[in-house]
Amino acid sequence: MGTRFLAEIREQPAALRRLLEHDAEIAGVASVVRERDLRLVRFVGHGSSDNAASFGVYAFGLLPRWTAMRDSITLTVHYGTPLDMSGSTVIGLSQSGRTPDVVEYLRGARATGAFTIAVTNDVTSDLARAADAVIPLAAEPEIAVAATKTYVNTLAALALLAGHVAGRGAEVADGVREVADLAESALPGLERATAPLALPFSYTGRMFVIGRGVEFATAREIALKLLETCRIAAEPLTATDLAHGPVAALDPLFPVWAIASNDGTLAPVQEAAARVRDMGATLLASGTAADRIDGAAYRVPVPAPRLALLSPLLSVVPGQLFASALARARGLDADAPHGLAKVTLAR
Amino acid sequence: MGTRFLAEIREQPAALRRLLEHDAEIAGVASVVRERDLRLVRFVGHGSSDNAASFGVYAFGLLPRWTAMRDSITLTVHYGTPLDMSGSTVIGLSQSGRTPDVVEYLRGARATGAFTIAVTNDVTSDLARAADAVIPLAAEPEIAVAATKTYVNTLAALALLAGHVAGRGAEVADGVREVADLAESALPGLERATAPLALPFSYTGRMFVIGRGVEFATAREIALKLLETCRIAAEPLTATDLAHGPVAALDPLFPVWAIASNDGTLAPVQEAAARVRDMGATLLASGTAADRIDGAAYRVPVPAPRLALLSPLLSVVPGQLFASALARARGLDADAPHGLAKVTLAR
Repeated sequence: MGTRFLAEIREQPAALRRLLEHDAEIAGVASVVRERDLRLVRFVGHGSSDNAASFGVYAFGLLPRWTAMRDSITLTVHYGTPLDMSGSTVIGLSQSGRTPDVVEYLRGARATGAFTIAVTNDVTSDLARAADAVIPLAAEPEIAVAATKTYVNTLAALALLAGHVAGRGAEVADGVREVADLAESALPGLERATAPLALPFSYTGRMFVIGRGVEFATAREIALKLLETCRIAAEPLTATDLAHGPVAALDPLFPVWAIASNDGTLAPVQEAAARVRDMGATLLASGTAADRIDGAAYRVPVPAPRLALLSPLLSVVPGQLFASALARARGLDADAPHGLAKVTLAR
Repeated sequence: MGTRFLAEIREQPAALRRLLEHDAEIAGVASVVRERDLRLVRFVGHGSSDNAASFGVYAFGLLPRWTAMRDSITLTVHYGTPLDMSGSTVIGLSQSGRTPDVVEYLRGARATGAFTIAVTNDVTSDLARAADAVIPLAAEPEIAVAATKTYVNTLAALALLAGHVAGRGAEVADGVREVADLAESALPGLERATAPLALPFSYTGRMFVIGRGVEFATAREIALKLLETCRIAAEPLTATDLAHGPVAALDPLFPVWAIASNDGTLAPVQEAAARVRDMGATLLASGTAADRIDGAAYRVPVPAPRLALLSPLLSVVPGQLFASALARARGLDADAPHGLAKVTLAR
C-alpha cells in the first residue's frame, strides 16, 4: 500500500538523468522558438501539470526574460473565442498526453498560428500527435495515481527549454545533473526527517501551503499531494495572498507549511510566517532556507543547488515524502486514492 | 456584529450605478489603449482584486479578443527581472490603492514602456498617483474588512473597459445597468434563500468552491469570503481541476459549492458535480444554471443578465450572503475578522 508512490519518489534522480539524455532534442525545439522569436509563452495543463506551469512562468521569465502565462483553456475551447496566436509558443503539459481539453486547446492554437509543443510522458499520445514538436518526459511509466517523477521531470524539461531559448542550455543541463546528484544523496535523510512528522499531523484536516516566486509551484504541488493521498484540505497560497484574507481562518489546529528559498522572496515568506505564528498556528518550514523561518515547530531543509531557479526540483521532495508517510499512518493507499484514475479524462 | 458587511452587500446595486457615472472616463482610458493597440493585458492585485482579475481575463478575451493574464509580481518586483512591457496594458487593482508590491510593480511596468491603469477606490492613493490613468471604483468607503461592493465594482469596471476597447462600451454599460436592477430586485429573495443554509453548514470546516470560465472568479471570491468571515478552509477549483486530484479528499462532511452558468462551461461543471455526488459529498448549487445541477441538496439560483459575461456580478451575491449568515450563526464578526486589517500592507 503506497509502495509504488514511494518507489517513484525514490526514482526521481534516475528519471532526471534519463531526461538529460534528450537534451539535444530539447535544444532543437528551443532553436525553432528562438529563431521564430515566439516570445509569448502559453502553458496549458491541469493538476500537477498546471503546477509545473507555475514554475515555467519563472523559467521563461528569469532565463530568456520572456513573458509566460498559464493560459485559459475555457476561453478558446469552451467559449470558442478565436484568438490570434501567431507569435506565441504554446506548451501543452500532460503526463498521459490524453487530457481532452488540453489536446483540443493545442489543436486550436496550432490552427491560429502558434508553435505548439507537447511535453508528455507518452510520445505516441494524442497530445504528441497534435503538436508541432514533442519533448518526452522520459520518466518511464508512472503507476501511482499521484504524480511525482513526471512532475519533477516536467519542471526540468521546462527549465532546459527556457535555458536553451536563452542560450544558457548547457548551464541548465549541468544544473539539472547537479540536482539529480543532490536529490540522490539527500533522499535517505529526507525520508528519516519526514517519517516522524506523520504522528503530529495524523488528525490534521486542513492546511495552507505557502510559497512565492519559483516556490509557488512547490506550494501548489505539495498541497495537491496532501489532498490526493492524505485527504487533507490543503490550499496553496502565495505568502502575500495569505495576508489578504485567508490568515483569518487560522487557529492552532490549522497548520501552515512554508516553503522558504534563499532568494528575493525570503522576506515576504518570513513576514507571512510571522503572521501565522501570531494566529497561534503550527508552522512547518521546508525549502533551502527552512532554517531562516523563526518559530517553526518542524523544519525539513533541502540542499541548495547552484542555479537557484532549480530549487523547486528539490523542495517538492519533503512534501512528497511527508504525504507518503502520512497516508500510510492514516491507512490510506497513496498508490490508488479513492475516486481517482491515473488518466483523467474529465472535460 | 457583521452589520457593515451585510449593509455593503445590500449597497451593491447603488455602487454599480455610481460607477456608471464614470463611464465616459473609462471610455477615455479605453481609447488610449485602443489607439496605441496595447493588446497584451497584465493584471496585478491580491485577494479580491486578484479574483476580479480572473474575470478580467475573460472580459478582455471575450470582448476585444485580446490576451490578458494575471501577471507575476514576484518576477519583476522581488527578482528584479527587467521585462520589456512596451505593447502592454498594465492594470493595477487595489481597493485601497496602497498594496505595496502592486504599486511597485506598476511603477516598474510604466518605466519599461507599459501603459498603466490604476483601478482603485481611492483616487488619491499611491497606486493612482503611480499610474498613467485612473479608473475610480466609486464604491464609496468600504468599512467591512471583507470586500463586497468594491469587488463587484471592479468586475464592472473591467467589463466596461474591455467593452470600450472592443467598441461595445454602450452595450456593456446597458448590461451593468440591467445587472444593478436585477441585483436590487433579487437581493431580498436571496437573503431569504441563504439564511436557512447557516444551520446545515454551521460545523463545516472545509469546502471546495468550483466554477469555470467567467465563474472561476466567483468561485475564488466566494471561497475567500468563507475563509475570511467564517473560518472555513474553502478552496476554489476549476470544475476540471477538481477531477485532477482534489476530488479524492471529498467525503460526506466535505461539501462542495458549484457555480453553474448557462454557457459553454455548463457541461464540465455538471460532470464535476456528478463526481462530487459519487464521493457522497453534499452539493450546493448557485449561479444562473443552479437548477441544472442534478442532485444538489441546496440551490440558490440567480437571475440571468442579457450579457452572459456579466453573470459573475450577480452570482457572487449568494456567496456573500451565505458568508454573512453563517458568520453570524458561528458568532464571528464578519466586519472585523481576527488577524485582518482593512488595508493590507504585507509585502
